[in-house]
Amino acid sequence: MSRPRLTPLAESLPATVPFVGPEAQERARGRKFAARLGANESVFGPSPKAVEAMRAVAPEAWMYGDPESYDLRQALARHLGIEMDDIVVGAGIDGLLNSLVRLHVAPGDAVVTSDGAYPTFNYHVAGYGGSLTKVPFKDDKEDPEALLKTASETGAKLIYLANPDNPMGSWHAAPVIDDMIGDLPEGCLLALDEAYVEFAPEGTAPIIDTSNPQVIRFRTFSKAHGMAGLRVGYAFGEREMIRSFEKVRNHFGMSRVGQAAALAALADADWLKHVQTQVARARDRIAAIARENGLEPLPSATNFVSIDCGRDGAFAKAVLDQLVARDIFVRMPFASPGNRAIRVSCGPDPDLDRFAEALPYALKTASAG
Amino acid sequence: MSRPRLTPLAESLPATVPFVGPEAQERARGRKFAARLGANESVFGPSPKAVEAMRAVAPEAWMYGDPESYDLRQALARHLGIEMDDIVVGAGIDGLLNSLVRLHVAPGDAVVTSDGAYPTFNYHVAGYGGSLTKVPFKDDKEDPEALLKTASETGAKLIYLANPDNPMGSWHAAPVIDDMIGDLPEGCLLALDEAYVEFAPEGTAPIIDTSNPQVIRFRTFSKAHGMAGLRVGYAFGEREMIRSFEKVRNHFGMSRVGQAAALAALADADWLKHVQTQVARARDRIAAIARENGLEPLPSATNFVSIDCGRDGAFAKAVLDQLVARDIFVRMPFASPGNRAIRVSCGPDPDLDRFAEALPYALKTASAG
Repeated sequence: MSRPRLTPLAESLPATVPFVGPEAQERARGRKFAARLGANESVFGPSPKAVEAMRAVAPEAWMYGDPESYDLRQALARHLGIEMDDIVVGAGIDGLLNSLVRLHVAPGDAVVTSDGAYPTFNYHVAGYGGSLTKVPFKDDKEDPEALLKTASETGAKLIYLANPDNPMGSWHAAPVIDDMIGDLPEGCLLALDEAYVEFAPEGTAPIIDTSNPQVIRFRTFSKAHGMAGLRVGYAFGEREMIRSFEKVRNHFGMSRVGQAAALAALADADWLKHVQTQVARARDRIAAIARENGLEPLPSATNFVSIDCGRDGAFAKAVLDQLVARDIFVRMPFASPGNRAIRVSCGPDPDLDRFAEALPYALKTASAG
Repeated sequence: MSRPRLTPLAESLPATVPFVGPEAQERARGRKFAARLGANESVFGPSPKAVEAMRAVAPEAWMYGDPESYDLRQALARHLGIEMDDIVVGAGIDGLLNSLVRLHVAPGDAVVTSDGAYPTFNYHVAGYGGSLTKVPFKDDKEDPEALLKTASETGAKLIYLANPDNPMGSWHAAPVIDDMIGDLPEGCLLALDEAYVEFAPEGTAPIIDTSNPQVIRFRTFSKAHGMAGLRVGYAFGEREMIRSFEKVRNHFGMSRVGQAAALAALADADWLKHVQTQVARARDRIAAIARENGLEPLPSATNFVSIDCGRDGAFAKAVLDQLVARDIFVRMPFASPGNRAIRVSCGPDPDLDRFAEALPYALKTASAG
């Protein structure tokens, strides 16, 4: 017997994924959470029509899903006003980002993101040996100018930008993004993560232009459509760039149930509207709860609100721990200065009631600690 | 505008996945298949209890699946008589093979498989720049001796072997595999794909030994459990080797619905027994249909039967095309000499009635052509 030989790159990677799920926390605590407000899931649930579609297709789960996700891509094409060949469907934005990085980043290749932005993107860059440079947020927003400058300096192949962004909830208006796209260095691809775009004000998403091979945009059924547990995301952009995913994608990786549910969810504009309304209300309420406790809610174009706890990262972490101890699952930004905040996902009133009840005690205990 | 820069490896890969799905064929034909017997799916369907579990969990699809697949791994550990940390769950064997190859194969690294074995494994090896050597089948079986010899000669990091195998349906008894494991070259890892093992005779699967870091075994809910459309597979082996998947795996990639359904399916031993019985009957019937038409069914330890059409690959392809033209979806082995056969998945009687009805005409037309 002898050990198998990992690649030198794999050998160098830590055997740790970037998140601990709420279920793992529950197992460690020996107690369930009373409110699940930490993962920016849509606590308002999926469209009842999507639920119906899942139930109807359940007995057909013996069939592989269509590896082309044809019907779903066709519906998305209509929805976006582009061609279906400009779209690739994958197992969530996570899965698509993996393929994106794999296609473009060889060991040592430069990539740029914001310090405190999506850890799973960073995990993929590390996983393919990329050299990642992180640019600070500016006024709690990702900083297009600094991202461009660093990309230019490092010769980056990829820039990651989320608009609206996670974890701060901030956003740029479309013209800012358009300017950024116009200023991309030669051969640099902008990965524009729009996971939360359905919650943003009109005028946040740039007009779709699939003629530009330097932009790829990512959207998902995990957030506004309430289907994080089904793994359906999509990316769109210039056709040849999108086609390159065929080189590496897990072709039978899309679940049949997920495809059917996504199709139903996309068709249910009323439910989306309902969720958007509920999210807007919940954002206001989370902001009000924050203010009642002397804290500052940050403006949000997403389905969560980051709350500035007014002190440093250690204090915000103490507040978070106290909320968790009171059975409220929330998370917080990883990097300074964002980590002075806790991040609370929108949810229905009973969940926010629990949060409102727990927060004063959490603050008091954290302050005393 | 300028084109983004793929890695040299990605640049060199064709933008084609290895399979065309039956849905794509249906769209091209403009007509649905009457019998879906080409993808070795379990036409007998998932356990009614798994369907019930999918339906129950559907409204909870807004939650990400537990990224640790804790409950499922715990149940699998009990089922296999090992520890849960010896198991990794992934989006089908396809997804796990991707991670396996990624972890071990750097550009130029040697890998060995059988000529005509699973194309998706080959796709992953090519996708990571591996140097793949294919060894011929021997008497329609994968050839452990030749695989070992070639692995030794090429310094291979991985050997892929399916037992029972696809596409021939043949198998080796456990002692043959145990001997092979004992003779593995230093640092060579055997990827033992047991996707069809639930259909094989007693004594096909070697006794599980998680102390040996040179063997990783793959199983799935896509075949006997009838859940190909939900993407749940697993791999097990020596703990540290299994833990290396944490370096690269898509941690939120397991659907919540899939996890719940797999848990229910695993608990329903009666349904598995039922499917095994139905599959055994269907194998006999497919064999009888073959013989009635003067063809030779190959012995099978899977949920399909490969039928030797008695002539060359071109003839078998003509028979297949004629079956497809008669609305029977079947596939055939890719490589010679296996490609003298067509491959027919087990299904219930109405599907096999259609196959039985179409085959004589398909043979007649193919012979005349």
